[in-house]
Amino acid sequence: MYLGKITGNIIVGQSGGPTAAINSSLAGVYKAGKELGAEKVFGMLHGIQGLLAGKLIDLSEKITCDLELELLKRTPAAYLGSCRYKLPDYNKDAKDYEKLFRILKEQDISAFFYIGGNDSMDSIRKLSEYGELISSPIRFIGIPKTIDNDLEITDHTPGYGSAAKFIAAATKEIIRDSLVYNQKNLTIIEIMGRHAGWLTAAAALSKGQDCEGADRIYLPEKDFDKETFLKDINSLQKEKQSLVIAVSEGIHLADGRFVCELSDKEFYVDEFGHTMLTGAGAYLSALVKKELGCKTRAIELNTLQRCASHIASLSDIEEAFEVGRRGVMAAADGVTGEMAVIKRVSDSPYHCTYETHNIKQIANMEKNVPLSWINQGDDGMSEEFIRYAKPLIMGEVMPIMVNGLPMHLEYVGGR
Amino acid sequence: MYLGKITGNIIVGQSGGPTAAINSSLAGVYKAGKELGAEKVFGMLHGIQGLLAGKLIDLSEKITCDLELELLKRTPAAYLGSCRYKLPDYNKDAKDYEKLFRILKEQDISAFFYIGGNDSMDSIRKLSEYGELISSPIRFIGIPKTIDNDLEITDHTPGYGSAAKFIAAATKEIIRDSLVYNQKNLTIIEIMGRHAGWLTAAAALSKGQDCEGADRIYLPEKDFDKETFLKDINSLQKEKQSLVIAVSEGIHLADGRFVCELSDKEFYVDEFGHTMLTGAGAYLSALVKKELGCKTRAIELNTLQRCASHIASLSDIEEAFEVGRRGVMAAADGVTGEMAVIKRVSDSPYHCTYETHNIKQIANMEKNVPLSWINQGDDGMSEEFIRYAKPLIMGEVMPIMVNGLPMHLEYVGGR
Repeated sequence: MYLGKITGNIIVGQSGGPTAAINSSLAGVYKAGKELGAEKVFGMLHGIQGLLAGKLIDLSEKITCDLELELLKRTPAAYLGSCRYKLPDYNKDAKDYEKLFRILKEQDISAFFYIGGNDSMDSIRKLSEYGELISSPIRFIGIPKTIDNDLEITDHTPGYGSAAKFIAAATKEIIRDSLVYNQKNLTIIEIMGRHAGWLTAAAALSKGQDCEGADRIYLPEKDFDKETFLKDINSLQKEKQSLVIAVSEGIHLADGRFVCELSDKEFYVDEFGHTMLTGAGAYLSALVKKELGCKTRAIELNTLQRCASHIASLSDIEEAFEVGRRGVMAAADGVTGEMAVIKRVSDSPYHCTYETHNIKQIANMEKNVPLSWINQGDDGMSEEFIRYAKPLIMGEVMPIMVNGLPMHLEYVGGR
Repeated sequence: MYLGKITGNIIVGQSGGPTAAINSSLAGVYKAGKELGAEKVFGMLHGIQGLLAGKLIDLSEKITCDLELELLKRTPAAYLGSCRYKLPDYNKDAKDYEKLFRILKEQDISAFFYIGGNDSMDSIRKLSEYGELISSPIRFIGIPKTIDNDLEITDHTPGYGSAAKFIAAATKEIIRDSLVYNQKNLTIIEIMGRHAGWLTAAAALSKGQDCEGADRIYLPEKDFDKETFLKDINSLQKEKQSLVIAVSEGIHLADGRFVCELSDKEFYVDEFGHTMLTGAGAYLSALVKKELGCKTRAIELNTLQRCASHIASLSDIEEAFEVGRRGVMAAADGVTGEMAVIKRVSDSPYHCTYETHNIKQIANMEKNVPLSWINQGDDGMSEEFIRYAKPLIMGEVMPIMVNGLPMHLEYVGGR
């Protein structure tokens, strides 16, 4: 294993939502590409969409020294820009494919790496299948990235650990803030996650010797019941004045209606047909204020969840780098149509290994939080979840501070 | 100066909104109190309101070693709990005063320290005046604290620097996040500050070699004009696709109406048919979406602005400690009815000294951002502001990380 060499050039792109770790995977691809003999490592600007428009850069011109590589690992969002471009079915419309393979051939590309989530892995699946169809020697490898942690096969996804660390730290600080006034109050933290509750579950990590943790946690994996919720909050408030709960943006009633839809008349659908959600926290905050009459506050953690690289997890940043490297090593060994995956060997001491896995079992799938990891009342996380998630937020990546602020590698995509 | 000794015991309380630095001032009061000979340093739980109910603790029992003192400096919100209790006019109703002075006498208190903002300084004014009236030997000293930076006389207020650092770092990360998609989009960051724009102005610090900074910044010190705003955004979007602007929660029209009050049924109606209380950012985001048709997003930085001690400013935490210490040194020298203030000697190299100042010129006053520090278009900050604010966010206070999260000193107020 891993004895191969890269010939010619390679190309790497980023796709889907930003994370604090996606650029560390880019750094891993770049580093391994150079080490394994790639003449050039190209970056596609704004993913496949940019590549179709011929927008690519030679990464060596941007990453000229180790310091810049370190800076890249500490830079949030997608250094190369991103896209949400869905490749058509090649059986029905092969135009994009013909164009992409022509560009790849022109640039003497031997391997193609795409850092992204479920949808991006579907692009890798399609490209590798089309490549096989036309007997192309180009290898297509997926590098996992998503704060949502909802990719199959891999133990967890790079990007999740840093988002979870920010969420847990912010929850601790918000709990602390909520305690200071001697009065009944409820704070609702709304956390990202349409279908999978991994991010919201991370609020459970706030619990420790110095913090009671979130009082209730509601994930989209379970139905949400308004009446039970109100009764529960009412009775909890008899024990303690200050309550902090975490809700996923995607919590829904048993009849399938999203809680956020109960307040928003409009709702939007993105290019992939996903419903765009806002407002479960705001809705519940208004509901509790009306029904129970206490002071309430809704806090959306918003995009900081995915871009707060100033409090990134070292474990996450290192693993993100490693999946990038391992993807390149697999390509050098002739692998195609696979995604780099993390395999957990042990929780404590935490230890993982890396391998690649058939993309067909990953693309378009979604991994939810196991129902057995949610407590009986459907409003908190079990010890199994804590054992799983705790190692993922471990360790600090000291930002490179300039003028009192974290420094980033200058963006190369267009503004 | 500063040759006096503390006799008997001292007491310290915290009041008003939480900050990331208020506990560092508490640590400063405690440390100097012990050094200057106080037998006991009492903490009042939930400020004057708690003290009136006899709720005080002996801080030595909670801070038993230097590590715990360091942990206190890194703990956000108010360690002792807070209150928003307004003392009545002692000429009309002296009951509170009689009770407070009786409690202080029972506990052999020689000096009373109150860490807070404008309203808290008014309490110090009233207590010191009443003390003079009854010829009490107890000294009353104010210790400045507010993220709003709106206290008179002092160059700046402890708490502001850390809030400004979080705001600037978050703005950098949000800008970075907003850049990745190759499409027109506007992100509006809503920042705290009803009357004073200091916090919103801090978004200007995001600008640097690696970041273009916020495209527009709107403070409550100037009137906001919707038409000018829309025209400006429209023309800016012709130069660059991705715009990020910062608005204060308190921006208002020339007729005095707050922008957040403008949210009407057209945009936000809840299921009961009532207008939802939404912020200036949400309103402007909906307005731009409707009028200009681009993707918009409103982000409220919310309570994290005041409690994100994980990215506190070293300069701020050290100065907060120092104003606490200097307050105690002044009391030991016989001073009463004054507030510890920071005097800036030089911007670069940044250097400050400390003194105390008559509380009557501080209590109930409000210091706004100088109009000359706002640019001609009323939508950005001048170089003078940058020179003023930059030193305040300098330096890092490494949190004490346990299990991947910042550790705090356990809360002593009631839950």
